[in-house]
Amino acid sequence: MSSAAIPAIAAADWGTTRLRVWLLDRTGNVLAERRSDEGLLAAQPDRFAEILERQLADMGAPPTLPTILCGMVGSRQGWVEAPYTTVPVSLADIFGAAVRVAGTARDIRIVPGLAQRDPSAPDVMRGEETQLAGAVATLGSGRHLVCMPGTHSKWVELADGAVKAFQTFMTGELFSVLSTQSILRHSIGRDAKVAAGSTAFETWCANALAAPGPVETSLFRIRAATLLQGLQPADAAAALSGMLIGAEISAAKARFLTQGGSVVLIASGSMSDLYQTALGLAGFDVMVADADDAVRAGLTEAARHLGMMGSKDVA
Amino acid sequence: MSSAAIPAIAAADWGTTRLRVWLLDRTGNVLAERRSDEGLLAAQPDRFAEILERQLADMGAPPTLPTILCGMVGSRQGWVEAPYTTVPVSLADIFGAAVRVAGTARDIRIVPGLAQRDPSAPDVMRGEETQLAGAVATLGSGRHLVCMPGTHSKWVELADGAVKAFQTFMTGELFSVLSTQSILRHSIGRDAKVAAGSTAFETWCANALAAPGPVETSLFRIRAATLLQGLQPADAAAALSGMLIGAEISAAKARFLTQGGSVVLIASGSMSDLYQTALGLAGFDVMVADADDAVRAGLTEAARHLGMMGSKDVA
Repeated sequence: MSSAAIPAIAAADWGTTRLRVWLLDRTGNVLAERRSDEGLLAAQPDRFAEILERQLADMGAPPTLPTILCGMVGSRQGWVEAPYTTVPVSLADIFGAAVRVAGTARDIRIVPGLAQRDPSAPDVMRGEETQLAGAVATLGSGRHLVCMPGTHSKWVELADGAVKAFQTFMTGELFSVLSTQSILRHSIGRDAKVAAGSTAFETWCANALAAPGPVETSLFRIRAATLLQGLQPADAAAALSGMLIGAEISAAKARFLTQGGSVVLIASGSMSDLYQTALGLAGFDVMVADADDAVRAGLTEAARHLGMMGSKDVA
Repeated sequence: MSSAAIPAIAAADWGTTRLRVWLLDRTGNVLAERRSDEGLLAAQPDRFAEILERQLADMGAPPTLPTILCGMVGSRQGWVEAPYTTVPVSLADIFGAAVRVAGTARDIRIVPGLAQRDPSAPDVMRGEETQLAGAVATLGSGRHLVCMPGTHSKWVELADGAVKAFQTFMTGELFSVLSTQSILRHSIGRDAKVAAGSTAFETWCANALAAPGPVETSLFRIRAATLLQGLQPADAAAALSGMLIGAEISAAKARFLTQGGSVVLIASGSMSDLYQTALGLAGFDVMVADADDAVRAGLTEAARHLGMMGSKDVA
């Protein structure tokens, strides 16, 4: 192992259904990676240490290598609760509130999530704050509107390194339950993949953007279009996706777009492609950051901020 | 059996999951009733005749008693397809398009559903058109706005005995899949019954009416309110119901309320109570018709219109 290949930190994004672990060098480069299905649900109630140590040993991590974690592992149902920090809050203060896991040989810390305690708009996030910090490291200060699509999409208003406000949209989860559990499954069939460049996606997304209406009624239009207009299964899946994403963007625009028209999209793979298309249809200038890169950069930032990467890195 | 107790017609509302059959006298009074779970799904592909005859024999119906049906039994996946009539259409013309089941000893007819073929607002209904006809028989002519809550709520604009336009909201189905299949199940728990007079129902419904927004974001507020504000399971179910019903009514108001502020609510049981509360919060004057009574009255009207109840009734 060359000197450059010596791990400075282990980092993990530990969510409800997935665990991703990396060994990173002092500049945040990936030396090793493991992905597993041992998310929160598989690790409860007390298998967290065992699972993490097995993954680290598998990558040859030294037993004293410090480890930084983010995601649902810090929830009340996780390993150790890292209580929410309350917005508005600076990214530095989020990291400063990281919680140390007691009784472990190595130094393990968990980045907390964010809570928005406005009584009329309560909201929470866990994990996305770390992606956000990673992306901001390259964005610089100033005001940014950030879109992080997923099971529960987050839109975030950032200003000068602080999270001012955010809003969650259950877009991905609605697509999932509606395409498999509702009457729309008869329209969509078994393969609910949405093809990149789908005309049906663009059409239904543009309609949702042009005439924002309640999804309760737009949803049934997909069923009616199957019965009356011969909408095909692949197009029905694209229609559902386009309609839900269009409704999300339309509402987020109304909520956050006080100035300018640019958005930072933190996403990966086909999700990134669909949102780039949809945000373009909505008239946004889009800057794209890869979600995997962002979470690793954020975890590295957190470890550095907490002095976990040695004095050389702090200097 | 007294002369008054002689059945003039058998009538059935045959939906996707339920079958309800009645023997009715010449004025539409109920002489016998059977309810079963042998809906469309249980009767496919060719058990329709067998199931209906067993229910009729069980009630002692003569083998030549004519029978009028409505609901999904007339869909393409049903017994015999009764093709949609297209709105605008008069209730008389809907009945006139009833389809006769071939090859049966008794005279069996199926009332067709309605299709709205507007390319920008395709929509369909099957079964509700018969409830509508039953309610209209007592409402008289003129303009009426009708709300029929359910798995797929229908709002209908009626004028002078004709259906002008309608809109479907997947309110009931959204409640069902979200309360059992989404992250909200953790907030709601196992018993998703909404208590009549629930303060949480009224609060969330009033909020949805006052500030109509996308349900994708309001939905996650229920989760956040559980985590941050101590929202309890029974209140979370009421919140979800109130929010979805409020969003439906708000959108229906925007779509249909061109004049006046009264609505005819065709519903039964706890659903009727919840919608009466919600429509009251929205400022509507509400006239209530029982859904079971309405569908029987509509089936009786259809049979009379089709001359199935003997010359005495036509006179």
